[in-house]
This record gives sequence, C-alpha cells and structure tokens, in this order.
Amino acid sequence: MILVGERINGGFKDIQRAIREKDKSIIQHWAKVQTDAGADYLDVNMGAASNKVEDFIWMIETVQEVVSTPISIDSNKPAFIKEALKVCKKPALINSTTADKEKLDQILPLAVEYGASVVGVCMDKKGAPQDVNRRVELGATIFGEAIEKGLSEDRIFLDPVTMPLKFLQEQAANVIEAIRQFTLLSSPPPHIIVGLSNISSKTQEVKLLNRIFLVMCICAGLDAAICDITDEELVNSAIAAEVILSKHIYSDSFIKAYKESKKK
Amino acid sequence: MILVGERINGGFKDIQRAIREKDKSIIQHWAKVQTDAGADYLDVNMGAASNKVEDFIWMIETVQEVVSTPISIDSNKPAFIKEALKVCKKPALINSTTADKEKLDQILPLAVEYGASVVGVCMDKKGAPQDVNRRVELGATIFGEAIEKGLSEDRIFLDPVTMPLKFLQEQAANVIEAIRQFTLLSSPPPHIIVGLSNISSKTQEVKLLNRIFLVMCICAGLDAAICDITDEELVNSAIAAEVILSKHIYSDSFIKAYKESKKK
Repeated sequence: MILVGERINGGFKDIQRAIREKDKSIIQHWAKVQTDAGADYLDVNMGAASNKVEDFIWMIETVQEVVSTPISIDSNKPAFIKEALKVCKKPALINSTTADKEKLDQILPLAVEYGASVVGVCMDKKGAPQDVNRRVELGATIFGEAIEKGLSEDRIFLDPVTMPLKFLQEQAANVIEAIRQFTLLSSPPPHIIVGLSNISSKTQEVKLLNRIFLVMCICAGLDAAICDITDEELVNSAIAAEVILSKHIYSDSFIKAYKESKKK
Repeated sequence: MILVGERINGGFKDIQRAIREKDKSIIQHWAKVQTDAGADYLDVNMGAASNKVEDFIWMIETVQEVVSTPISIDSNKPAFIKEALKVCKKPALINSTTADKEKLDQILPLAVEYGASVVGVCMDKKGAPQDVNRRVELGATIFGEAIEKGLSEDRIFLDPVTMPLKFLQEQAANVIEAIRQFTLLSSPPPHIIVGLSNISSKTQEVKLLNRIFLVMCICAGLDAAICDITDEELVNSAIAAEVILSKHIYSDSFIKAYKESKKK
C-alpha cells in the first residue's frame, strides 16, 4: 500500500496559520508524525492560505529540513508544480493532472523531466464524472497519454474521483467499480489512488466510513490512498485487507511486520 | 444483511456445559443477547457436547421459550434436521447441505416441505475446494438442484467455504472471487453466506480480520454471515459497507436507522 499523508494542507487551521506566520514548527511536527506513521509521501497543499509560489516552496523546504519522505506536490497550477519539482530532493508525486489535453501536455513532460510520478484525476473541463464509464474513459485517456509521453505504469496513479457519500451516495459504488476496471487497463496495471477523506465529508461517522470505504476499494484493486495516516485503525485495516488478498505473507504479527518493512 | 448469530454452539464451553447439565439459563442468555443485537437467525449447534437428537430439540425449544428469532438448524445429519424442522415455530434456515447428490436429495425436499431456507456449502465427498472454479462449479450444482426441487432464489444461501487465513492464506482471495461469480448465477442472485469466524481461526487479530474480511466479501456481493453478532464494531462495519453500496439510504444516523429497522 502506498500511503500519502494528507495533513500538511492549508485547509487545516493549524497549517493555515503556520503558512501565514511562517511557523515551521507545526509543519515539521506533521512531517515527522506522518513519517513515523509510515507515510510513503507527504502531501503538501497551500489551500487558501496563500497564492504565492514562494510560500509553497517554503512549505516543501520546511518539510525536507526534518524528514526525507518524498513530497506529493498538491497544486493545480503547472507553474507551481514546476518550481516545486526543482526543490524536491526525492522523486516526487505530482498531485495532480486532469484528463484535459493542455493540462496533460504541461504536466506529463514535467514528470518525465524530473523523474516524478503523477496522479491523474479522472475529470476534465466538462466536470466531474457521474458514472463508471466516464471514469474509465478519462482514466484510459490519462493512462494512454502518460505511457506515450514515456512514463511507466508504476509512475501513473489513476484517481477515480471520490465524492461525499452524504451528498452523492450512488457515486461510491461507481468509484469501486471504476477501480476494478482500471486494474484491467494494462498488466501490470497503473497504481490506483483515492483522496479518501472525501467519502466521509460532513458525515458523523468519519473514521468508520473512511476505513470501510478504503477496504472496499482495496478489495477492488486500489493500492494507494491520500489519507489520515495517523489513524492507526485505518492503517491496520488496510494492512489486513492486503494480507487477506495475499499481497503480504501472513504471520501472527502481520501488522507489526508490515510497519517494520515500511521503516526500512 | 442477514446476520446469523453463531454463539449457541457446543464448541463454546459455556454452551457445552449447558447442554450436559440441561441448564437453560446460558442458552437463553445468548438467545436474548443475540436477538437484541439484531440477529435474523440464531444458529443452534450441539458441537461435540452430545449426539442425541433429543438434546438438539431441547436446545431449539429452550431458545424458542424466550425469543421468536428464527432458528438456523446447524447439523450435518438429515435425521436431526428433520426432527428440528418439526419443532421450529418460524421458517428455519437449514445449515447445511453439501453438493453431494444424496445429501441434496435428502435435504432439499425437507426445505420445501417445511418452508425452510437452506445453506449450500460448496464442498462434496471429494473434499473442500481449493480454487475459485471448483467453488463456482459446486455452487452452481447446489443452486440448480435447489431451483429444480422448487426452492426460490431467496431461500438458497450459497457458502463458498471460508478457510483459516493462517493456514490457507491464498483461499481468502478465492472465496471473495467466488462470491463475485455467485452473484452472476441468476438475477436476482441467491443469498451468499460465509461462516465468518473461520477466517481468523488461531490468529492474534480475530476481530480485525473478521471485520475486514466481512467488508471485502460484502463488496464482492455477500449478503449474509454466520458471525459474532455481539461484536458491535463488526456489525457497524457491515452496515457501513452496505450504505457505501447504496443498499440502504444514507442518513447521518445510518447505523441507528439500520438497527431500528431490524427491530421492526
């Protein structure tokens, strides 16, 4: 499982304040906590706290002062992504491109140039997908373009676009079915990722819904998630799901074994 | 979700003692507790505590003195099943038949005669299935025979045979895939059931593995389980999985709403 820690995001009040006051301590706290919890990438997103590229670069450099965990560059602005790629010390995850041709034409060459991986979100200018077929169509477009531009399958992360269960209940099953179909795009398939917390937005059962939806997505073929990696029950559930699918060998202490393998 | 409470089973020491000492209180305690937790059926199994049919009948009548929850008649002896059916006050679940012709020829007519449903375990004299295809082949045999004998889809429960993850790890994914294929047998499909606790046998993560495996099976099409219905986290996980699949309408209090609908 490839886990991307979601917490360094200007949408959280403490991070918003940290960006505005240039307070490194909060950002570095979350960089360390999420790394200790086993994050494969740390997502860095300014939210509405700033629209200056120098603040974005400051966030990434602040993270890299205390951990060596790769960065997930979370921005919809190609210019910001390019500047961020220049300072990332390890191969980054670009989060994200859509399926729009002009976006793909900007982002994919950057991924190739900087050895980065890329999240391809299955939407375009026409809007968010409302069914399985549209997700698969957009996923196939992104996948095909990325391969053509020279990215290998293991550097492509397709995102079927998770929507709030509370407002768009029927989309959850569509996301799960789209994941199943993404696994058929190639052999080996690309990575498949969700922005997990969207599913539970505005609900009263945030942790339960995050956990159960993640397990169902893993059952369909998901192998990556942007999520609250500090939620131990969530991570243990993901590990158990992968052991049930024989992605890791069973041992009585399979949770501990998985976590130790991540630290190496 | 159709939940069958597993607890009135001579394999548990308190039940074993209750059978031997004819102590109704323990059995009636579990009958009430499991009914309060929302059991659709109460499984009744003597285990090795007795081999007398009158003890089996005593157990069922003891349960029926305090609750009106239907009985899951858990025995591999057709003669015991027949006697049990005579005393069951509500349509029972016969647990179980295998795919062997002589077994089907004995059990299916009993189900028809007494208005019972039947669990068809996907194994036969050749032994337990080791792959997906064998499970589906045996499931199709049971399903076809049951329909021919006059049972409707909603009285047939196919069981793909859950095995201990600790000893037969690769079988878990086979069970999940067999469930997916069972859903294609007919429209509407038969019920699909697992004996859930088998997955976690002898592991150190019993509740976690039960819970995660159940959610994965529900994602593949499962709609019934023989399980520890007093494990609230397990039941809440199953409810969440069904809400994610839009089997129940989302509301902020969807767990409470589901539980209240069960009590009616």
